[in-house]
Parts: sequence; C-alpha cells; structure tokens
Amino acid sequence: MSDAEFQSIVGRFRCEVHWGDCDPAGIIFYPTYFRWFDAAAWNFFSIVGYDVKRMRAEQLAMPLVSAQCEFKSSPVHGDHCEVLSRIVRWGGKSFIVAHQVLREDGILLAEGSETRVWTRRAGGPGGPLKGEPISEELKTLFRATG
Amino acid sequence: MSDAEFQSIVGRFRCEVHWGDCDPAGIIFYPTYFRWFDAAAWNFFSIVGYDVKRMRAEQLAMPLVSAQCEFKSSPVHGDHCEVLSRIVRWGGKSFIVAHQVLREDGILLAEGSETRVWTRRAGGPGGPLKGEPISEELKTLFRATG
Amino acid sequence: MSDAEFQSIVGRFRCEVHWGDCDPAGIIFYPTYFRWFDAAAWNFFSIVGYDVKRMRAEQLAMPLVSAQCEFKSSPVHGDHCEVLSRIVRWGGKSFIVAHQVLREDGILLAEGSETRVWTRRAGGPGGPLKGEPISEELKTLFRATG
Amino acid sequence: MSDAEFQSIVGRFRCEVHWGDCDPAGIIFYPTYFRWFDAAAWNFFSIVGYDVKRMRAEQLAMPLVSAQCEFKSSPVHGDHCEVLSRIVRWGGKSFIVAHQVLREDGILLAEGSETRVWTRRAGGPGGPLKGEPISEELKTLFRATG
Repeated sequence: MSDAEFQSIVGRFRCEVHWGDCDPAGIIFYPTYFRWFDAAAWNFFSIVGYDVKRMRAEQLAMPLVSAQCEFKSSPVHGDHCEVLSRIVRWGGKSFIVAHQVLREDGILLAEGSETRVWTRRAGGPGGPLKGEPISEELKTLFRATG
Repeated sequence: MSDAEFQSIVGRFRCEVHWGDCDPAGIIFYPTYFRWFDAAAWNFFSIVGYDVKRMRAEQLAMPLVSAQCEFKSSPVHGDHCEVLSRIVRWGGKSFIVAHQVLREDGILLAEGSETRVWTRRAGGPGGPLKGEPISEELKTLFRATG
Repeated sequence: MSDAEFQSIVGRFRCEVHWGDCDPAGIIFYPTYFRWFDAAAWNFFSIVGYDVKRMRAEQLAMPLVSAQCEFKSSPVHGDHCEVLSRIVRWGGKSFIVAHQVLREDGILLAEGSETRVWTRRAGGPGGPLKGEPISEELKTLFRATG
Repeated sequence: MSDAEFQSIVGRFRCEVHWGDCDPAGIIFYPTYFRWFDAAAWNFFSIVGYDVKRMRAEQLAMPLVSAQCEFKSSPVHGDHCEVLSRIVRWGGKSFIVAHQVLREDGILLAEGSETRVWTRRAGGPGGPLKGEPISEELKTLFRATG
C-alpha cells in the first residue's frame, strides 16, 4: 500500500445521536462512532454500485484488519451528524477508508479510518472468506475526476 | 400452546450493567434487557446440551415471534445482575421462555418473556429457516424433576 | 388509563437495517427494534414541540414501565424502514406509544408499544425522576384533528 | 507522555461473544471490541479501588481522546474471551490503556488501546468535565511491583 494518496470521491452518510447512543456523562458512547463508520463504509460502496444486494449475491464482504478514531468534540442526544468517507489507499487485496464525522453546524466531531480486506466467500454460503484482488475497475468507481 | 404450565428447570445468566448500557438519565437503556434475554436464552439451551456448536452444526436456530418486558426498578452502571430463565410453555413448533432479571441484592429489576420458534435451516447454510416440531426429548431436557 | 382510544397524529421515523444490526442468521437482531422504538418516541415528541433541547432544559424524561413487540417479517441488511408512532392511551402520569415498523415496500415488519411515564427531574441535574401529571396542553399537541 | 513505558499490573475482564454481537458473516461485529475495551477499562479502575460508586461519588470520569484496534482473528458466537488491560503511558492529565483480547484457548483475537483523560465534573452534576492532574498516588495503584 505504498501508492500516492488516492483522489477519492466522498461518500456521505447521515446519522443522529440517539438517546441510547449516549452514556451517563450525557455524551456519545464512543463505540457508536465505529457503528457509524461501518454503516458509512457499506453506504459508500452502495453509492458506487456495490449495494448490499449485489454484495450478497456475489458473496462479497469486507472484514476489518484495523480501525482507529480520534475524538475531537462530543456530540449529545439530538445532534444531527454526517460521516464523510474517502478511500485513501488501495492495496492488493485491502484498502483504507477514512471517515470524518461532522455535526450539522460543521464542527468536526471525530476522524478515523478502517483498514478492510476485499473478500469473496469461497464455495458459497457458509464457506470461508478469502481475500480477492482489487480490480482497477473497482478503484475507478471511487476515483474523483479532476 | 394450551398445555398446563411446564415445570421447568431454571437457567442462570450473569451480566453486569456497563457504562455504555446506560443512557443520559444514568440508568439502564432498556433494549439492553432484550440483549440480555437473547443471550440468556442461548445460554439456557447450552446448559441442557444444545450449545452453540451443536446448534450451528445441526443448523438449528430459534427466531422470535414476540418479546415483552416490564421494568420494575432501574439498575445503574456497575450493578451486577442475573437473568433467571424458565420454559413456561411448549407449543408444536414454538415455545415461551420467561426471564426475570435480579440485581445481586435480590431486587427484581425486570421480568418478561420471549416467544420463539424452533427452526432448522433447510438445504444447508443460506437456506430458509423452517419451523421444526419440538420433540419430547427436547422438552425433557428442560423438565424439573419433582 | 380507561379513556377511549386517543385519535393521535402519526409520527414517522426513518431507519435502515445496518450490517451490525443483523445476526448470524442474516436477519435483524430483535433488540434493534426496541432501539428504533426509543428513537422514534423521542422523535415523535420532537415533532410536536418537545425536542431534545427543550426536554433537557426542562429536565423532562420519559422512562419506561414496559415494552413489547411482535415480529411479523424479518428485514435484512440494507432494508429501508419507517416507524409509525401513535399515542394510543394517556393516563394521569403515563402514556402508551404504539409503533409499527414498515419496510419501504409497505410490508409490516413488526408492531409493538411502549408504556412510559412522564417525569421531571426534581432538584436539578442528578436529582430523582418524579412522575409529572400530563397536562391537557401536552395531549392536545398529539391530537389528530378530524 | 514521554515517560518510559510504565510497568503496569494487568486487569482481566471476562466476556463472551453473544449471538447479537455477531454480524451476517457469522463473526464478531467489530464495534463490540470497543464496547469490551470500555467495560474493561472501568473494570480495571475498579480493581485498584476506583470502583463505579467511588467514581460517581467523586464526580470522576475518563472520556476518550482516541481509540484503535487491530483485529487478528475473528471469534464466533459462543466463544469465551478475556480482555487483558495495562496502563502503558501516564501523561499529566491523560493516560493510555492497552488491551489484548484472548480467546480461552489462548489465541490472540485483537489488540488495541484507548487514550483517556482523567476528569472531574466541575460544579457538581450537570457541570462540565475538566481535566484533572493525575496524582502519583493514582499511578502507584497500577504499578506492578517487581
């Protein structure tokens, strides 16, 4: 994954801090961000043509190698947010999605990333997940045309 | 499901109210109880011989028809609890598990139940879940001997 | 709570079944519905003028007495849904919100209800929640005008 | 936070992969690890004398600056695990807790860390969280005597 940074389109995923997403301190319980990251990643692939039905039909999945997040400002119950996602690196079979979480007033709440492997389930349902080479065609779907 | 109430053994599932299980009011966020009920039901079947590996190997599952809970007293972060589970009704292909949640000082926090269907996945992984007649052998495993 | 059924306006709360909301059977993990019910209830109050900021400023909350749900059809990852909420009963200090969950093609996925108490925190932040009489003014906000 | 690595005692937190902690791929949904990290951190402080009641009475909390995790092997429903936690760095007002998640057969499932700030709520319940200098006394509680 030594390529120069990839010029990626930006995925947008809207979300809201619900009562049950907060802890007794009255702010977001931090694993909520990672739930949002995961949903934002699926949403991002959906936008470019790999929606859930296609992923399921082609037995594709994208399990994680790692995830990290820095928390900048803490939202509270009722805050409306948006996760902006970009592909920042493509490897042979893995890739990195960077996410920024913004509150609707533009305040940066958190930023982080997920490293995921592009996999196909071998031998149909119930079979093991195996890393799949990432095609140029797939990368092109996420390329920002400048 | 018109049988007289079944004299069931009691399953016990220990749990704890974590920081992230609570809401801004500082008490348990109520869907947590249903997460506990589900885990307690799986644990209960495990105790009598249907552990997760066996359930998976035999393609068995127990999806829900309904669930309900009454909340009696609200635990807070750090409270240690126990879910006591009993089979209160066996139907042809469905059954009712009743759950009581007690805090370690004996206070009743909540009580509720889940109605579940005993199913087997037809045609292996990925196939549809189909209702499976509940055998006398299965019922016997849960019968309290008086 | 012996009044005739209340003719209520309908609250609408959009949601989606995310990857992490599903279980190994590939369908929604049932406590997810109760997370949606809770968020739908807060959203419903927000619509009529009791948004989160006001609830917080006036130290209002609405803890639960009970909750129940019947599961009719199981959504999968990627399904877009809507929760329709109605007040079906007002008591002196408590009320019942009924919820229906529909998939975007109109299929009824689940229906249930929550019994909640209208409370105010006595003595400011950190004080105990106390039941508060439900005013006619509050009820009027939810009344469908025929 | 330039100090040499701190020789920390090890906190142990037992957990189990429940049905609802898994995703449609049949493996753990990754935000579950962060829920465990958070519970393990609270448990770790409890072991040395800062249990939940004391934290609450003294208005102490430990909000996060960042969190990260590498996923090494994927547990499935029914796996029993343990989170081993260590303080690896003390700063003036912040600290880093490193966590390793092991399956009961000793397989390393994941390792990560949380950077947290030691805070006290100023002005009682409802007041803002303010960073609090970490005392030598607190550090001593976690020091492995060797």
